[in-house]
Amino acid sequence: MFQNRDHKWVYLFQDGHATMKNLLGGKGANVAEMRHAGLPVPPGFTITTEACLGYLEYDGQFPEGMWSQTQAALKEVEKAAGKTFGNVDDPLLVSVRSGAAISMPGMMDTVLNLGLNDETVEGLAKISGSRRFALDAYRRFIAMFGHIVMGVDTEKFDRVLNRFKAQTENGRDTDLSEAQLSEIIEAFKLIVFSDRKGDDFPQDVFDQLRMAISAVFASWNTRRAVDYRRLHRIPDDLGTAVNVQAMVFGNLGWDSGTGVCFTRNPSTGEKVLFGEYLLNAQGEDVVAGIRTPQPIAELVHDLPEVYQQLTEVTKKLERHYGDMQDIEFTIERGVLYLLQTRTGKRTGPAAVRIAVELVDEGVLNPQSAVMKVDPVQLDQLLHPMVDPDADVTILTTGLPASPGAATGQVVFDPDEAEKLSAEHHIILVRHETSPDDFHGMAAARAILTARGGMTSHAAVVARGMGTPCVVGAGDLHIDYEKGTLAVNDYEIKRGDWITVDGSTGNILLDKVPTRQPELGGYFDTLMNWADSFRRLGVRANADNGHDATVARQFGAQGIGLCRTEHMFFGDERLALMRQMILADDLAGRKQALDRLLPIQRHDFIEIFRVMDGLPVTIRLLDPPLHEFLPNFDELQMELAQLKLSMQQSNQFTEIDQILREIWEKEQLLRRVEMLREANPMLGHRGCRLGLVFPEVTRMQATAIFEAACEAASTGITVLPEIMIPLVSTAAELENQRQIVKEIAQEVLGAHGMVLKYMIGTMIELPRAALTADQIATHADFFSFGTNDLTQTTFGLSRDDSGRFLPHYISNKILPEDPFQVLDQSGVGELVEIGVTKGRKSNPGIKIGICGEHGGEPKSVAFCDRIGLNYVSCSPFRVPIARLAAAQAALMHSQDYMKQFEGLEKQRL
Amino acid sequence: MFQNRDHKWVYLFQDGHATMKNLLGGKGANVAEMRHAGLPVPPGFTITTEACLGYLEYDGQFPEGMWSQTQAALKEVEKAAGKTFGNVDDPLLVSVRSGAAISMPGMMDTVLNLGLNDETVEGLAKISGSRRFALDAYRRFIAMFGHIVMGVDTEKFDRVLNRFKAQTENGRDTDLSEAQLSEIIEAFKLIVFSDRKGDDFPQDVFDQLRMAISAVFASWNTRRAVDYRRLHRIPDDLGTAVNVQAMVFGNLGWDSGTGVCFTRNPSTGEKVLFGEYLLNAQGEDVVAGIRTPQPIAELVHDLPEVYQQLTEVTKKLERHYGDMQDIEFTIERGVLYLLQTRTGKRTGPAAVRIAVELVDEGVLNPQSAVMKVDPVQLDQLLHPMVDPDADVTILTTGLPASPGAATGQVVFDPDEAEKLSAEHHIILVRHETSPDDFHGMAAARAILTARGGMTSHAAVVARGMGTPCVVGAGDLHIDYEKGTLAVNDYEIKRGDWITVDGSTGNILLDKVPTRQPELGGYFDTLMNWADSFRRLGVRANADNGHDATVARQFGAQGIGLCRTEHMFFGDERLALMRQMILADDLAGRKQALDRLLPIQRHDFIEIFRVMDGLPVTIRLLDPPLHEFLPNFDELQMELAQLKLSMQQSNQFTEIDQILREIWEKEQLLRRVEMLREANPMLGHRGCRLGLVFPEVTRMQATAIFEAACEAASTGITVLPEIMIPLVSTAAELENQRQIVKEIAQEVLGAHGMVLKYMIGTMIELPRAALTADQIATHADFFSFGTNDLTQTTFGLSRDDSGRFLPHYISNKILPEDPFQVLDQSGVGELVEIGVTKGRKSNPGIKIGICGEHGGEPKSVAFCDRIGLNYVSCSPFRVPIARLAAAQAALMHSQDYMKQFEGLEKQRL
Repeated sequence: MFQNRDHKWVYLFQDGHATMKNLLGGKGANVAEMRHAGLPVPPGFTITTEACLGYLEYDGQFPEGMWSQTQAALKEVEKAAGKTFGNVDDPLLVSVRSGAAISMPGMMDTVLNLGLNDETVEGLAKISGSRRFALDAYRRFIAMFGHIVMGVDTEKFDRVLNRFKAQTENGRDTDLSEAQLSEIIEAFKLIVFSDRKGDDFPQDVFDQLRMAISAVFASWNTRRAVDYRRLHRIPDDLGTAVNVQAMVFGNLGWDSGTGVCFTRNPSTGEKVLFGEYLLNAQGEDVVAGIRTPQPIAELVHDLPEVYQQLTEVTKKLERHYGDMQDIEFTIERGVLYLLQTRTGKRTGPAAVRIAVELVDEGVLNPQSAVMKVDPVQLDQLLHPMVDPDADVTILTTGLPASPGAATGQVVFDPDEAEKLSAEHHIILVRHETSPDDFHGMAAARAILTARGGMTSHAAVVARGMGTPCVVGAGDLHIDYEKGTLAVNDYEIKRGDWITVDGSTGNILLDKVPTRQPELGGYFDTLMNWADSFRRLGVRANADNGHDATVARQFGAQGIGLCRTEHMFFGDERLALMRQMILADDLAGRKQALDRLLPIQRHDFIEIFRVMDGLPVTIRLLDPPLHEFLPNFDELQMELAQLKLSMQQSNQFTEIDQILREIWEKEQLLRRVEMLREANPMLGHRGCRLGLVFPEVTRMQATAIFEAACEAASTGITVLPEIMIPLVSTAAELENQRQIVKEIAQEVLGAHGMVLKYMIGTMIELPRAALTADQIATHADFFSFGTNDLTQTTFGLSRDDSGRFLPHYISNKILPEDPFQVLDQSGVGELVEIGVTKGRKSNPGIKIGICGEHGGEPKSVAFCDRIGLNYVSCSPFRVPIARLAAAQAALMHSQDYMKQFEGLEKQRL
Repeated sequence: MFQNRDHKWVYLFQDGHATMKNLLGGKGANVAEMRHAGLPVPPGFTITTEACLGYLEYDGQFPEGMWSQTQAALKEVEKAAGKTFGNVDDPLLVSVRSGAAISMPGMMDTVLNLGLNDETVEGLAKISGSRRFALDAYRRFIAMFGHIVMGVDTEKFDRVLNRFKAQTENGRDTDLSEAQLSEIIEAFKLIVFSDRKGDDFPQDVFDQLRMAISAVFASWNTRRAVDYRRLHRIPDDLGTAVNVQAMVFGNLGWDSGTGVCFTRNPSTGEKVLFGEYLLNAQGEDVVAGIRTPQPIAELVHDLPEVYQQLTEVTKKLERHYGDMQDIEFTIERGVLYLLQTRTGKRTGPAAVRIAVELVDEGVLNPQSAVMKVDPVQLDQLLHPMVDPDADVTILTTGLPASPGAATGQVVFDPDEAEKLSAEHHIILVRHETSPDDFHGMAAARAILTARGGMTSHAAVVARGMGTPCVVGAGDLHIDYEKGTLAVNDYEIKRGDWITVDGSTGNILLDKVPTRQPELGGYFDTLMNWADSFRRLGVRANADNGHDATVARQFGAQGIGLCRTEHMFFGDERLALMRQMILADDLAGRKQALDRLLPIQRHDFIEIFRVMDGLPVTIRLLDPPLHEFLPNFDELQMELAQLKLSMQQSNQFTEIDQILREIWEKEQLLRRVEMLREANPMLGHRGCRLGLVFPEVTRMQATAIFEAACEAASTGITVLPEIMIPLVSTAAELENQRQIVKEIAQEVLGAHGMVLKYMIGTMIELPRAALTADQIATHADFFSFGTNDLTQTTFGLSRDDSGRFLPHYISNKILPEDPFQVLDQSGVGELVEIGVTKGRKSNPGIKIGICGEHGGEPKSVAFCDRIGLNYVSCSPFRVPIARLAAAQAALMHSQDYMKQFEGLEKQRL
């Protein structure tokens, strides 16, 4: 091929196509597409990636015919631009850019203004009416070309330039005189000559072009590019294309100009042109900020025809790309050119409004509109968000544990937080939180902790309450005694204002304006479309009536995970729970359980009422019992303190009192020590508790079925699904199922009720997934607990991973945090095994997922692909999951893909 | 079938066959086989399991033809026995027994002496010469039949019997007179009559037989039998057979008798008859111990012909069953009958000797001999064992952590143990051990701890030293201060003698005689055969030269796991390790590592020397770093203590000193707290250390390659295999492999050496097995770390499982402790996935296993079946693994199975 001179090595932009990305590279394909859309793009051509491979294979020789095809293409460009390459009077200048199929740092970027030499620079001076401009362009070109193409160290040019700048009044580029610029040009040429041992800076414009093309080809094999490909597993035999494009100038008079423009308002989504421009200026002038740009609407007065053209072009663009565009344009002597267009970034509310309105306008169909909105952006519609236009100072970034932004005054003590909250906006800041801090957390506008992960106490409670929360912000140095919070170079005192952004994890200095969420029309329309496309059910994880209410408002179709242990926190309950755990025998345990029973029953009734007609999955007690007991270290310190105060006391009655306290604390300490575990994550928890203490399972089952009967008797439709946690072997489930069934018969019998209910299990251990065929014979449903499954599959404790997981992610050992995005090749493989085996022995089994991943779009797509029945996530993630599920269903449906292709073609 | 009267429902013993177990049940097939071997078995017949199913299906009706076939068979039995059923002068009595294909409690067991009634009892009196005997047999029969067949409560008979016994002088059965027995018989008949509402105790012997057969059939469906089948997943449609067999009597004069006999000495294996007998007696008399039985050798004087016959029968038996037999026999009027024969239990040494000698005698071929020895029994040949003939008192039982038995005096303090060990045999008893106790452990004859599991510090160190050790003996209450050890009802004081049996986990009161191990001839012969059959390689886990030497002596073909972290314990090393961990920066860490390097290098040289020519797999640092630091709780207590003493002090210099100590301890405490992990098992350990601190990997790799070069330069053949632990993703291995390769090049280059080495990984996390195809592209070998893989697959911490695992096993939630016997359906599934995927992307990869399972026979068989290259286990388990591997290879080789069948047939 490389020796076939008739082979096509060069494509004019109008001859390329969007589908030819491998041959023309990303940039080349993109500009070809713009041409096809009828957009005014400066003329140019692309030299193919094949030519690059030939060049590399034949040791730096262009393939046969490539150069002559390049020259021919250049002739076409000259025709289109009305200028001639190397012509002294009106020279065509070009840019030369690399463009691989995959964008890749480390490769040659861009050479601008190629075609300038000692003669054409005068031509440019003439037609631009500014000799200074032409000389400045020339000296920039020599340095750029000298460095990028000829390999001269940039610093050498900079050193000379700086010496000249030092001679001016203000020491700026713009202060250099024409004379100085001429001197600089000569000096730069000399640098090139001396550095390259006698090679002059090329005055022949075709030499310039040939050398630039060669340099782009060669940059494919620079060390940085090769390393990058190795790291990202990009094949080495793709090669890069080269794009040669005519330069256009916005500074050739007052009928020229330059600007940037969004086709709609990216903040609100409103359908108006949004952006700014400067007449008789180059892009650099806009960036330098010397002149103030005009709002785009003014253009209608300055250049009405161009404004009209821009309005039409933006319509065409949106119709072509099916989305709001962010464009760069230049006007050269009254002619509009588009330099770049890309899909514009926007806020969540804008994204929703734009997608819906594009359907109204007939640009998109509802399927495409659903595909256009990033589900994660919906979060901005559900929570207050930091005003995107605000200036902020980021103090540090932690884990975004519960979304939304809130501004308030820092308080470190939960009691104080509660006391002050009536009259102040409080941000509660703690090392980490415990059940004892609940009242302070409930009183706070936002919660911030230095330790803990996405499932720490603070994170879980905050998500439940919908309070913004950032956890694990390791940079914080909190001193409770001094009442200060040191973070990087700042010291925040009790009472100082900060802003917590739970959507991003950012902690911001001082008050920051926030925007209230707006739901309504556009949102509802989009979500209705989404619901009509998705296959996955979407449920919520909710542990109480309040959360359940929120979940239902957001469209949850049931509760996928109700964690009963969260019901045991709170003063009275915790005391009873401790009494149960500390009991010496069955009788003692039963006494405590009997008092817990009505409390649990009451909680369940509330949830059943809210979820009337929808299923509620209730997980039996899961965490190790010592989680309900006081902290061992703290107890030990308290004990040491007591002993110390006894030593110091000399009052008999006081000593007596202390001795009794010591005795009690020692008893408690002993029990806490007995229950301590080396690895509580892998310890005596989940159904293992119910196996050893069946009375706990019995109490919980009794509470569930009594609550169900009571709710049902008031006309509520109750659909309880009892879930046995942490099963690793079928026999465990068989045992617990038997107990629950017996209680169900007993309670329903006593109430004379008939009630449909299910008993199933969480699949959250590798062994459960591997033996799902055996387990499924005892289960009406599976729910994959992918949090724990990720922990055991990776052998990775979420609580401890902070010490090395960030290192892993920044060094690309792991592509993402597997606790946030489901690891499809490891954990996902187990989920697939579990689904396949489970359905094999029990084809009708209902299967869902209830880990944090249930509200993460990529993970939702995975769940759709492997055919789960539903996902379950925290209430505020329900809309995200609904949209992500719709996108997944559309992506995985061939019909849609065909239709979508058709739509794209129709628009072209 | 059930209505076909020509269908064969009844088989005479001589018509049955060993292969007809499903039809004739286990007992029926077995007795048929004895008949075929030409052994003198009392005549009888078996009614088939089919007949039982017919009876159950047709609501308690015998299938057509069954009863007439039973009567016909009985006629044959009468002929063979020379007695007639129901005959008044010389009545044939029979036993009726159930016999399902699978032995099953809860089913009807045995009715003896069926055929007795008011008339035949007199015949029995006449021929036995003892009316008392006949009456006694009759009253027993009525009670047995009344209870088992007619369902009368046993207590009713007992109450009457006890009243009569109370009238005798000594209150014993044997004191009852003939008159009393007659009265009892009448009373028993009355009980049956009244209890069964008018059904008399059947005098018709055929009624007796019919009723007994029906009762056996019906017992298949008793509640207990059904529950048992459900629990053990035995199908319900197997049914039970019924065996009817002529009774023989050893008490019909001085030419009659009864006895038990082993065909060889079960303690030593020597080829002599071993057992005892009583003339003119029944089995009951032997059990009752009223008369002292004679050694079997005496029989040659009492009944020379019978003795001769017995000698011949035992030869035949061994030839037939291919093994030493344990038989029960009865002599009735000079005729020898075998009542039962089964393979006899024996000690390990006896098992080996018998198997080898049976080959010498042409009874077995070497393959069969290898199959006959239980690998676990080899342990007895390698360690001192408790004399099996000794009387012992078991104080309690813990986990058998390191095999062998040792007797010694209890000491609680390691320093004291070291001091006293020169002149005393010491047993070191601790709550649990730590690296600080090492000197005391090394000085002890055995180690006993109250806490800890099979991989606790005590267990690992003891196994390494070959010291007997029992851990986790939870019943022990140790009081260090008082110097006492309370266990159940005993209190052991410091200096008291106890015996620790590390093979069984038993703790025995006082001194107990032990036997020294004997290896040599028989053992070597058997192991040579085993080695010639096995496919799996066998390696050892060894961390130092001593262990490696032992391993090599026991036939290890390399080291499969050398745990480098064990090299960091010991005073100087631990201090350096702590220095490394506590260092604030890379420079500090490097300083400590530089000093650790020569120490590690020295250790490696020693191991390479011992293993000259064999591969050595060295695992890089694995445990979390805080394992090398002092205990957090203890530090905290020490700190509290220091503060207390400061409060109490009033001397400035002292306070100064204490303040400094407090400061240092607080520094240490802070670091220890920082490194503490919620779940260290799932924390920052394994290759995660090497990823974050590559300097640790570099130091270890340098030590390995420098040691290899040094050893190689003295003519040693070094085959190092560097193993990266706890890999969960291919990128981790790729990273660490790169570091090790760079060091290898560097060190080998500097030494001008060429050396073959491998780099591989442990597969010990589910994700590693699931993504083994990706990982294998960076690995020369895999070693499955099934200890950790079991922990993560089950989500089960070995350290914490003690709280519920015993409950699980005793309640059959789990069949076995998965840390001892590999869980094939869960963990094993992952191993298979790992092997399949690993070989797919890297067909030549070497794969082994190095968890505790590598020395457990069932697990070894699994490894053979799935085609691993080798297993690795602790040195003392190497012979067990060699034998188990041979058995597995034979079992899995079809050729062998055919040959074995041929051999069996030839012997028949």
